[in-house]
Amino acid sequence: MPGVITLTTDFGDGSPYVAAMKGVLLTLAPEATLVDITHGIQPHNIRQGAMVLDQAAPWFPAGTIHLAVVDPGVGTERALVCADIGQQRFLAPDNGVLGLVARRQSPTRVIELTETAYWRQPVSPTFHGRDILAPVAARLASGVDPAKLGRKHAELVALDWPEPRKAGEELRGCVVWVDAFGNLITNISQEMLSEIGGSNCEVSCAGHVVQDMVRAYGQQPPGTLVALVGSAQLLEIALVQGSAAERLGAKVDDPISVRRRP
Amino acid sequence: MPGVITLTTDFGDGSPYVAAMKGVLLTLAPEATLVDITHGIQPHNIRQGAMVLDQAAPWFPAGTIHLAVVDPGVGTERALVCADIGQQRFLAPDNGVLGLVARRQSPTRVIELTETAYWRQPVSPTFHGRDILAPVAARLASGVDPAKLGRKHAELVALDWPEPRKAGEELRGCVVWVDAFGNLITNISQEMLSEIGGSNCEVSCAGHVVQDMVRAYGQQPPGTLVALVGSAQLLEIALVQGSAAERLGAKVDDPISVRRRP
Amino acid sequence: MPGVITLTTDFGDGSPYVAAMKGVLLTLAPEATLVDITHGIQPHNIRQGAMVLDQAAPWFPAGTIHLAVVDPGVGTERALVCADIGQQRFLAPDNGVLGLVARRQSPTRVIELTETAYWRQPVSPTFHGRDILAPVAARLASGVDPAKLGRKHAELVALDWPEPRKAGEELRGCVVWVDAFGNLITNISQEMLSEIGGSNCEVSCAGHVVQDMVRAYGQQPPGTLVALVGSAQLLEIALVQGSAAERLGAKVDDPISVRRRP
Repeated sequence: MPGVITLTTDFGDGSPYVAAMKGVLLTLAPEATLVDITHGIQPHNIRQGAMVLDQAAPWFPAGTIHLAVVDPGVGTERALVCADIGQQRFLAPDNGVLGLVARRQSPTRVIELTETAYWRQPVSPTFHGRDILAPVAARLASGVDPAKLGRKHAELVALDWPEPRKAGEELRGCVVWVDAFGNLITNISQEMLSEIGGSNCEVSCAGHVVQDMVRAYGQQPPGTLVALVGSAQLLEIALVQGSAAERLGAKVDDPISVRRRP
Repeated sequence: MPGVITLTTDFGDGSPYVAAMKGVLLTLAPEATLVDITHGIQPHNIRQGAMVLDQAAPWFPAGTIHLAVVDPGVGTERALVCADIGQQRFLAPDNGVLGLVARRQSPTRVIELTETAYWRQPVSPTFHGRDILAPVAARLASGVDPAKLGRKHAELVALDWPEPRKAGEELRGCVVWVDAFGNLITNISQEMLSEIGGSNCEVSCAGHVVQDMVRAYGQQPPGTLVALVGSAQLLEIALVQGSAAERLGAKVDDPISVRRRP
Repeated sequence: MPGVITLTTDFGDGSPYVAAMKGVLLTLAPEATLVDITHGIQPHNIRQGAMVLDQAAPWFPAGTIHLAVVDPGVGTERALVCADIGQQRFLAPDNGVLGLVARRQSPTRVIELTETAYWRQPVSPTFHGRDILAPVAARLASGVDPAKLGRKHAELVALDWPEPRKAGEELRGCVVWVDAFGNLITNISQEMLSEIGGSNCEVSCAGHVVQDMVRAYGQQPPGTLVALVGSAQLLEIALVQGSAAERLGAKVDDPISVRRRP
């Protein structure tokens, strides 16, 4: 009966730390299907971890257990939690990394992991992913009741997340993600964009004004800068068959402004 | 009964786009075995996608479904196809990415995906991998008859592929792949090499003439430039325990010339 | 009944060589669970392969088959072996890559792979991972008796491994691994450290003396250099929420010295 367990970490691709977690998972839940979401989160970048988790998790089946280990405070007082969100379960340090998935849909239950009987012993003070979260995930996958893992947790720590804001006729946001194509994904949702003027808007970034609002990259010739609502329902800037990030010299946190075309 | 589904994309390692596709696949085909071939294809590099697919696919079991998403034209008129080749099935945009596997063995059937009932709705105009190809792959893995997916497709788009050619006593090809060791893999097959003179040839690249034609890298001392027929039955240039690419400053598309030793 | 088969190679992430091995494994052992330990070993770096394998393998379940292909001597006389160590099985070239796991626990049996009936034919002289080790792993996973694979192998080749040494009141070791966080992991074990003075020591590296010996990274403010015993029971130097490797300009093989605080 164990289903899917996903892993999201900042350990780096091919890290023996990841392999150790998988070994622990497969020892305790041999039937589980392990899926790597990413191990390429920048070290300690909780915001990036939150974003990747939020973009990936909703696509997984009901019952999936998501393990998220971006944990700069490992070994200090930050809590480790098990959060039930929608039909899925998330295991992570309570440091904001669950902030976006919990905003998409409120957790129905959050447990702080305190029951040491479900952990691997001895617990390394520097690797709770291997010694606490992985064994707990495996036991959940094997049917253990989350209520047994610890006590009710009051509230998740909020994520420090940049919110777009309106300034007169202008919507001001920022780049929150640069994908492997060099597309600049922003924190401006399709809904916000519609309120300003939808496809009748122009988008500014790094001193450039993007005039072409398209539905798909290929609607303009290679080398054209375009703006569009991407597959995560967020406004993005792209260079057709090229890298907008390179062309504009743009990066995460750079400001984006949207206004109705005059 | 669902078997193996492989993924080949240009999304980058650890991309949430890849995770989203896997989530869709495992939601619809929970028993499928997912295997990453690569997500490191250079953005929009159809030729590289075709080559990796051609090198990897033949090793997989009969019944494997290969998903190849290198799709610069996503959202435009290019077709999406399901091609039966040998005992395997390929799902991809019809843009040349299947050009090499289809040259190795002719497809016995090609269907253009038009039946929207097998897709995820709504379909994002920028991510057909997640919304069309992944659900179709999962349904094929679960036993859906390919004939139901759409209409017969006339002919696959040809791949723009560099062919070696003979010029007098010389065979002229090029580097088509540089592997992680820095080995320079060429488009010259063992058969072509045999016609010129086999192990009795010398190979030129980037102003260097490689004299040592060996069977295995370790047959010469570290630091020696050697030529050999590699594991894909293609001529390659290697530096023993080093990187030929670095030593020669060579890269993909650089010309290679082979001639019988005088 | 086939269980877990892990892969550790220097082929690079997303290499078609890795995919080819997986295809062979899944063709012969469709029920096996494949786990990538890493494909990011530096080309031909046997010592790094040995270390990653040693850090990762112990966490996997009894019965796991570990495939380690760091094989600069492929196609020459080096042996290929199957080594039973603890409750696990290792398949690798006999070039030192098993040196650390075999030091942790002595092999109970080592077989040299000579029985060509269990190999894929024809065998490429440059890719024994695909044509010998993968088919043998799949057959072991399917229940083949290792004794049938070849003849008893006298002794594993020793790994060239830097051993720490005492010089008066000082313990001298070196950096053996830099993880993705920039933590400098050394070859000095918790036991050796305890003999010198445990948490009462100071650690020198690259001209810096690290005074803070902590249990967890987060016990000091961001930007502090700390020393601690990490999750592999080895002494490491870390920069709280930063990269010690960058701060110190340190890398693998750099000397580390530990002495009791005056």
